[in-house]
Amino acid sequence: MVAAGQVSTGIYNEEGAVSSSFLAHVANAIAAGDTETLLRDVGHLHQSEIGDLIEALDPEQRRELVNLMGETFDFTALTEVDDSIRREIIEALPNAQIAKALQLLDSDDAVYILEDLAPEVQDEILALLPFTERVRLRRSLNYPEETAGRRMQTEFVAVPPFWTVGQTIDYMRESRDLPDSFSQIFVVDPTFRLVGAVDLDRILRTQRAVKIEEIMRESPHAIPATMDQEEAAQIFEQYDLLSAAVVDENHRLVGVLTIDDVVDVITQEAEEDLMRLGGVGDEELSDSVLATSRSRVPWLMINLVTAFFAASIISLFDDTIQAVVALAVLMPIVAGMGGNAGSQTMTVTVRALATGNLGLHNAARVIRREIGVGLLNGLIFATLIGTVAGLWFDSVTIGGIIASAMVVNMFTAALAGILIPMLLDRLGIDPAVASAVFLTTITDVVGFFAFLGLATWWYGLL
Amino acid sequence: MVAAGQVSTGIYNEEGAVSSSFLAHVANAIAAGDTETLLRDVGHLHQSEIGDLIEALDPEQRRELVNLMGETFDFTALTEVDDSIRREIIEALPNAQIAKALQLLDSDDAVYILEDLAPEVQDEILALLPFTERVRLRRSLNYPEETAGRRMQTEFVAVPPFWTVGQTIDYMRESRDLPDSFSQIFVVDPTFRLVGAVDLDRILRTQRAVKIEEIMRESPHAIPATMDQEEAAQIFEQYDLLSAAVVDENHRLVGVLTIDDVVDVITQEAEEDLMRLGGVGDEELSDSVLATSRSRVPWLMINLVTAFFAASIISLFDDTIQAVVALAVLMPIVAGMGGNAGSQTMTVTVRALATGNLGLHNAARVIRREIGVGLLNGLIFATLIGTVAGLWFDSVTIGGIIASAMVVNMFTAALAGILIPMLLDRLGIDPAVASAVFLTTITDVVGFFAFLGLATWWYGLL
Repeated sequence: MVAAGQVSTGIYNEEGAVSSSFLAHVANAIAAGDTETLLRDVGHLHQSEIGDLIEALDPEQRRELVNLMGETFDFTALTEVDDSIRREIIEALPNAQIAKALQLLDSDDAVYILEDLAPEVQDEILALLPFTERVRLRRSLNYPEETAGRRMQTEFVAVPPFWTVGQTIDYMRESRDLPDSFSQIFVVDPTFRLVGAVDLDRILRTQRAVKIEEIMRESPHAIPATMDQEEAAQIFEQYDLLSAAVVDENHRLVGVLTIDDVVDVITQEAEEDLMRLGGVGDEELSDSVLATSRSRVPWLMINLVTAFFAASIISLFDDTIQAVVALAVLMPIVAGMGGNAGSQTMTVTVRALATGNLGLHNAARVIRREIGVGLLNGLIFATLIGTVAGLWFDSVTIGGIIASAMVVNMFTAALAGILIPMLLDRLGIDPAVASAVFLTTITDVVGFFAFLGLATWWYGLL
Repeated sequence: MVAAGQVSTGIYNEEGAVSSSFLAHVANAIAAGDTETLLRDVGHLHQSEIGDLIEALDPEQRRELVNLMGETFDFTALTEVDDSIRREIIEALPNAQIAKALQLLDSDDAVYILEDLAPEVQDEILALLPFTERVRLRRSLNYPEETAGRRMQTEFVAVPPFWTVGQTIDYMRESRDLPDSFSQIFVVDPTFRLVGAVDLDRILRTQRAVKIEEIMRESPHAIPATMDQEEAAQIFEQYDLLSAAVVDENHRLVGVLTIDDVVDVITQEAEEDLMRLGGVGDEELSDSVLATSRSRVPWLMINLVTAFFAASIISLFDDTIQAVVALAVLMPIVAGMGGNAGSQTMTVTVRALATGNLGLHNAARVIRREIGVGLLNGLIFATLIGTVAGLWFDSVTIGGIIASAMVVNMFTAALAGILIPMLLDRLGIDPAVASAVFLTTITDVVGFFAFLGLATWWYGLL
């Protein structure tokens, strides 16, 4: 964030992390209970800057900071920190203070903070809120996690179609109850059914006498509240939306989804795919050794089972290995190269499935392509590896055997790399989570079996 | 996109791909040269829908469609298709037609189409444009690839600070030269230096008599034109921006960067990290077998070298393997588990580096954590694997040797998984591209060496 120098308030160092001098300054103020300094130097920061500051402090300092700043502490900052840190801070606060703070937030931020809490705590806090606030937040919380209804903001501007541009502008100038920021206004009928939307720039370029219904888009991209947030994000991406109406099953306007939340969804979903392919769950950098270890053990455990399975394939051929020890030296090459080639295909496939670029309509073509690539690269590397291995062990037989095994395993890897994720996707299982295990099992087993099996058969003939 | 049913015009099937009936309908119209049908049924589609349609057609049909639609074809659709398809269509068109079409586009879209072309072709097309257009596009093209200056749009609204809200609204109502859509206006001094920015909703809530300087944000998030697009995207993400001014080295306003382009950057950068970790380059689903094979060979080649290196470690111990064949059966388990544990650490590290969450300020803490996790998981899996292997081969010795080797390799894997990406990042090398090779080399070599070396030493003692 260095280059944003003219805006950021010098809290960051050149690396983009909170600077140690600012951190020390804040820590001193916290230790001294110096509320005045905190209000002056922290109070005016952007919510995301306060979030970064909180993450850089010790757990005790975090709670102390929130206490000292009292009602001036902007709870929006809590939507910018790791889940575990947010929970730790919230759990230390009295419910009355949380309830008071939530009333100052946009509803989407309030829901973001509430949804992590235990249902009883949620109920206690909600009970302390005014009726309309409570109903709004409850409605969002009633939608399933990761839906548009959960992520939406219930503050928006809606006007009837027969209003003029002038009336609409006058309304916005006088109303005290507008959202903090907005980029379009919605048009609704008397039963609050969505009939259109108008971007603000459209309103600003239009004469006052013109009616809203004349300039509204009649089929705005309305998002059903129950739609998965990832699907909603794809619509935002496809149609370059800044915001979109969220509607209930009767097409009544219940909220608005904004691009800043969608950007978070996009980043988060891309991150999830990457982490899952790497065999890591939802861990965060702030997690402890124990929590991290626990989250990584299941993946290693599954891999352990498949590793023993592959080992049992090798043990079928122990007589052959004892006779020709070169096989033990070379066998990891066959398995490993298959695994790498399969990973390439799998990565492309998982990504294409996640972005909706791969479906039944082009599956046949993509599968044909991967088989072609698998065969071609199989032949290239069979030749290479066969030659090197043959020269190394001064044996045409060894070279021929490893080359044949390579073609078989690279072809299998290509097939497995594309078919496994597609099959998992069809079965409703996230291909990013499970593909790699199946893939390496197959490339290991086929690699060892093809290589050692071929060798056993050939040396048996001699 | 199914759920957007009320907006999408029925061109998609349930899977979200272009429906075969619509595809057949368009293909027939193209074959019959039926321009009227195409204008009616394709002309009104959203640019991204036309993009999807183009990708679904055959190469010949694509060119024919663009020809038949003539000047009504919206070139913005070309920014929505794979690079190779865009080039194929553009190269088949006369320069005069391209120049004419580019004038109708926003400058960022025009630059997006131009930047792929050979410099001579760019010059030829630019020479056909009116002077001001040419200067604008040339300015963007002169900024390096993947900078804010390349991605910016040069159409924006800028007003002096002493104008009133009323004057500003009147100006926007009368001007014919406004951008297609915008969410904020900029405030500049007479030398076009940026002095502030105002969101449209702010203008709409303010009385006509108020001066712009009274409501503008004085330190908007200005992006230097030479800033890397990924860094600019991080600023958008941190401060929830919809658009931002792009300024030259003298802080003069030269363009505006908008969130829709930033969303593309975010998606693309996340995708790049994922693809690179999987050992795949910039390939696209529409690439041919040959192009795909070529892009994947380098990665496999590097892995081949490291695989032979690991094999040469095994060959150091061939006498021991011949004596105790169980070692050959078990050795892939040690190497493989180390590789998997290292990948977990590496994935987390690469992601944290890419998002700027890992730097010098927290490196020590994160490294300590990973070492802790490596030791803990090493002990857990050493115990497990040692027990199973000992029972399998009915030998306490084998169990003890593999358990010790596991602790060594899991610890090494954790260290390598975090230090390799951090080191590469310091050296200015993209850790997503190169980390995996170094990591598996280390976990293979250390795994084989620790296991077979320990065994050789132990059996040598007997």
